Amino acid sequence: MKKTIKLTLSASLICLAAWYFLGMPGGSGADPATNILAPSQSGDPYAFLFEVLAIVLIIATVGHYAAAKLKQSPVLGEIAMGIIVGSLLYQLGGPTITIIRHYEQVHQVSSEALKASVCFSDATHKVLQEAGLPEKDTRQLEQVLLRKDVAQFYLTVNALQLFSSLGVVLLLFMVGLESNVKELRAVGGWALGVALIGMAGIFLLGYLALSIFFLKDGNPLIPAFLAAALTATSIGITARVFQDMKRLRMREAKVVLGAAVMDDVLGLIILAVVTGVAIRGAVDLSTVTWIFVKAAIFLMGVVLWGAILVPRLVTLFTTLSRGNVKVIFPFALLMFLAWLADQFGLATIIGAFAAGLIIKEDYFPQGRQGRTVASIIAPIQAIFAPIFFVLIGLRVNITAFADLQVLLMSLVLVGIILISKLASALPVKKGDNRLVVAAGMLPRGEVSLIFASLGKSLGLLNDNLFAVIIVVMLLTTFITPPLLKWAIERQELSASVRV
Amino acid sequence: MKKTIKLTLSASLICLAAWYFLGMPGGSGADPATNILAPSQSGDPYAFLFEVLAIVLIIATVGHYAAAKLKQSPVLGEIAMGIIVGSLLYQLGGPTITIIRHYEQVHQVSSEALKASVCFSDATHKVLQEAGLPEKDTRQLEQVLLRKDVAQFYLTVNALQLFSSLGVVLLLFMVGLESNVKELRAVGGWALGVALIGMAGIFLLGYLALSIFFLKDGNPLIPAFLAAALTATSIGITARVFQDMKRLRMREAKVVLGAAVMDDVLGLIILAVVTGVAIRGAVDLSTVTWIFVKAAIFLMGVVLWGAILVPRLVTLFTTLSRGNVKVIFPFALLMFLAWLADQFGLATIIGAFAAGLIIKEDYFPQGRQGRTVASIIAPIQAIFAPIFFVLIGLRVNITAFADLQVLLMSLVLVGIILISKLASALPVKKGDNRLVVAAGMLPRGEVSLIFASLGKSLGLLNDNLFAVIIVVMLLTTFITPPLLKWAIERQELSASVRV
Repeated sequence: MKKTIKLTLSASLICLAAWYFLGMPGGSGADPATNILAPSQSGDPYAFLFEVLAIVLIIATVGHYAAAKLKQSPVLGEIAMGIIVGSLLYQLGGPTITIIRHYEQVHQVSSEALKASVCFSDATHKVLQEAGLPEKDTRQLEQVLLRKDVAQFYLTVNALQLFSSLGVVLLLFMVGLESNVKELRAVGGWALGVALIGMAGIFLLGYLALSIFFLKDGNPLIPAFLAAALTATSIGITARVFQDMKRLRMREAKVVLGAAVMDDVLGLIILAVVTGVAIRGAVDLSTVTWIFVKAAIFLMGVVLWGAILVPRLVTLFTTLSRGNVKVIFPFALLMFLAWLADQFGLATIIGAFAAGLIIKEDYFPQGRQGRTVASIIAPIQAIFAPIFFVLIGLRVNITAFADLQVLLMSLVLVGIILISKLASALPVKKGDNRLVVAAGMLPRGEVSLIFASLGKSLGLLNDNLFAVIIVVMLLTTFITPPLLKWAIERQELSASVRV
Repeated sequence: MKKTIKLTLSASLICLAAWYFLGMPGGSGADPATNILAPSQSGDPYAFLFEVLAIVLIIATVGHYAAAKLKQSPVLGEIAMGIIVGSLLYQLGGPTITIIRHYEQVHQVSSEALKASVCFSDATHKVLQEAGLPEKDTRQLEQVLLRKDVAQFYLTVNALQLFSSLGVVLLLFMVGLESNVKELRAVGGWALGVALIGMAGIFLLGYLALSIFFLKDGNPLIPAFLAAALTATSIGITARVFQDMKRLRMREAKVVLGAAVMDDVLGLIILAVVTGVAIRGAVDLSTVTWIFVKAAIFLMGVVLWGAILVPRLVTLFTTLSRGNVKVIFPFALLMFLAWLADQFGLATIIGAFAAGLIIKEDYFPQGRQGRTVASIIAPIQAIFAPIFFVLIGLRVNITAFADLQVLLMSLVLVGIILISKLASALPVKKGDNRLVVAAGMLPRGEVSLIFASLGKSLGLLNDNLFAVIIVVMLLTTFITPPLLKWAIERQELSASVRV
């Protein structure tokens, strides 16, 4: 009996393998690399995406394991695995990874093609000509864009980005859930100090260093723009490290979170000022004021109304949806506030953080098994958040590190960011760990990327300066998890020695 | 103090409302209906989708509540609310709902526009001319397609469909998780009987009725195709009703699930036969055999290999991912098998069902709080599955019911389906509730829709015959939940009376 099963199994495995490699609908994919990730022709248009999702989750899991073995933060493992797998697949010419890497161009092509009078192939050629990519990349991207099934791959990449967006929003929601308004308000003054000193330091020192050493000639706006692009802090990575180490309740974590929210608001204001100057040659004071007022209205409005409306809404939803209130209500509120923040000109993650902040576990009816909102949403986050971090890794083009001038400029800027953040941590409350605050404020992220693509489209940043922003983002992203981990453990070690 | 807060709140609410309705980036949306659902211009491209998701979840929740009040199945409430909200928004000319309703055309336009020599506006005009929609719909769709921000709305609709696809896959996974191979094998014979009798009945009676009463003249393939299109059973709705009523462990539920899986396989074979005849005028026996062999290999392979591989993979993933194994592994397996099923020419939901089937709770390490895989995945399903059912409702064009001939033909076909399913339930084991089996096998669904769009593109089905398939799908979808609920409760009532 057992033998029969074994035989059947082996036979079916062979059949399966043979069918897979011989009989699969190939598209133009003659080489196995593109074949393995080729979309199917039958049925569900998202079947291919499901495979990509499974692969991304496995990549993330292996990254976790490797990071744990090397005593690094899990998030670093996810990013590193993304870089390794991405570089491999890109070398093999995989269409999905090619679109991920050159998403900006592909998006441009699709927008161009939507214009009434431009055809898809014309748009492709036009965008590729203007993009100024290395020749090899241009050829690879062109090949992918002119495939018959390019829509399928574009759809998959869009869906991956959607899941990644959902992941980071869920992550910030969980972070908000573990914070509370009172604690944040208690550290508000310190946080504002940290945010202002850090931003001022990066902007001034960055501007000076760039305009004295690297960009002596040419438009003085360029070094200003580049320095401004690096002022906003990305909270995703820091939040994840605090979460992984179960340290979200530390006072330092509150200071960093509060400062990062302020950073985001201030970063958007600087963005408005700098682009205003770049476009009109003058600062438009009313725009700047407006951004500030909108952000203030949103944050104060959510916090004030949250305390009053949320308990009532929970009661309403409990009546409406019975068993599922702890799932549906938090998720719906999260989605709504993420959207609302965007409407107020803020990042969606600020809205997500606010949604977590105003939900309290004791608003909800206590179930038999005492399951909390946090324990219900956590698994959803565990699925989607890794997609965000693996995707960061997949986007990295390691050849950008090869240009000496880019590398040098990036290292100088990273040094400036380090110094500014260390300085910004000086005024925190005595007894707080300054290193933790400084390390937590290091990562540059999405806002910097928005700056970068804006600067490129305004003609202020050339390819090398664009690469500098990416490299600085990568370096800060990479040093933060080990640095933060080390800073936290060092403090605890010295505390336990003292005891 | 309290007064100050109240004043601040009122003021901020007024500011918010004023800002929202006056200052919002309007696009071409002068009327409030399109304005409320307009995408934002800043930051996250998915912010708009987040709002739509929040609205869909609220619609679903209200639907739950209304259904509970009317003692109907929750899933019916979700679909009904989708129909109501969808009809309203469509009347108001909302772009998102317009794309949802005419997705087929929009998809066609985007595929046409990807061809090297066709421009977007030309593709739009060409597709709209060929589509033969009513004039009002054509105008509304054209207006939406020629908006500058149409890509944003198309992206949102694609994302909604993705979430809906994810939802139904998660639903079938949960259903699989609550079934097991042994129980299914025990009812295998009955299930095969139910599937075969039901399909044969629908095909033969449907063909006869259509060719005698409605489609006397013309191609005899047309009634055959139409009848064939209605043979496959959609398991989503039935599974949801069993789940809502906590009756997935009933013997009848197993029979229905088994029969539905067989139906899907047989349905795909009939599809191959009928399209083969339509295209070549002859049946291609090797294609038919191939479909059957592929499906058999997939199902047997998964079940046999599952018992051997899954426990080992769980051990591996437990080492790799530590705390998160109960989240990551089931989700990754689900995604992988859903994709694999598609590669074998089966529906993704069959793969999802198989994934649930081969996962057993006791493979996993028992955590402190004893959380099961089912209790972890259930909330994720609770978020995504309602999107599938609300979207079914949103797609419904109630004016299709207005054509008398369409309505009459549909009613006759629904009658034939009812009779065939009742007949198919006759051979089940004595003591089993035949009504439950018959009612559970009623819904027509995705496979019928695949047939319908194929038939249209082959030129076999005109608009009216296409509408017939949609109306039959709707009617069976609508009568199943109350009928099934009634059949189950009736049995239990009589059982309790006898006791």
